[in-house]
Amino acid sequence: MKLTPAQARSIVKMLDFKDGLVVAVACDFKTKDILMVAFQNKEAVLKTLTAGVVHYWSRSRNKLWMKGEESGHIQKLKSVRVDCDGDALLLDVEQVGAACHDGYRSCFYRKVKRDKLGHVMKKKFNPKEVYR
Amino acid sequence: MKLTPAQARSIVKMLDFKDGLVVAVACDFKTKDILMVAFQNKEAVLKTLTAGVVHYWSRSRNKLWMKGEESGHIQKLKSVRVDCDGDALLLDVEQVGAACHDGYRSCFYRKVKRDKLGHVMKKKFNPKEVYR
Repeated sequence: MKLTPAQARSIVKMLDFKDGLVVAVACDFKTKDILMVAFQNKEAVLKTLTAGVVHYWSRSRNKLWMKGEESGHIQKLKSVRVDCDGDALLLDVEQVGAACHDGYRSCFYRKVKRDKLGHVMKKKFNPKEVYR
Repeated sequence: MKLTPAQARSIVKMLDFKDGLVVAVACDFKTKDILMVAFQNKEAVLKTLTAGVVHYWSRSRNKLWMKGEESGHIQKLKSVRVDCDGDALLLDVEQVGAACHDGYRSCFYRKVKRDKLGHVMKKKFNPKEVYR
């Protein structure tokens, strides 16, 4: 999906950015699997809605980034749901390749098992071959 | 699921609390529907893992709260997944009643439709009858 800049600005006005950010949860639009959780500032939401591909705000690098800009593993936007408080978004996406920079389809590839984290997924790609 | 205090402390040590918090996404353990997004501090994670019912940290009220403490709409913990960075958790839960204080099963009951937010769910309860 893609909105016009005017439509996207109307949506952004309805959101409640806390310290300039909303939480964004990306889900596979078909399987409903959660792929990743990240943050978006106003610009990232606007870019996501108007370009139709997901952009995030990196808190560690302090910059806007398009998911997949280096790996090619972009997220095509299918629909957007907004929570009751307007401070969290659910992005239903078509994930090209895999979401996680560790090589997994989803960033949530580990599960709590007693006092350990066990892997519950197999790698889809070798990060060393994708990120140089 | 429930962990011992020692097991829960081991898990907490593996997490990366940013400004003291991790993002927690609660999902229905059967349908995979996303119910809500909130934050947890160390104490909330420890309480959740040892009690087996989900606790969050409220950024607006600046306090720990057990989900459902007023409404009875608790979240029984089934499993916990951890993301690659260790700063987001996926809580697979059995939701008693409905997750959203607005009366909906999920807090994500609105969807972007052009420049508007359309409702995509029906209410499960009347908030005025549940929260007094």
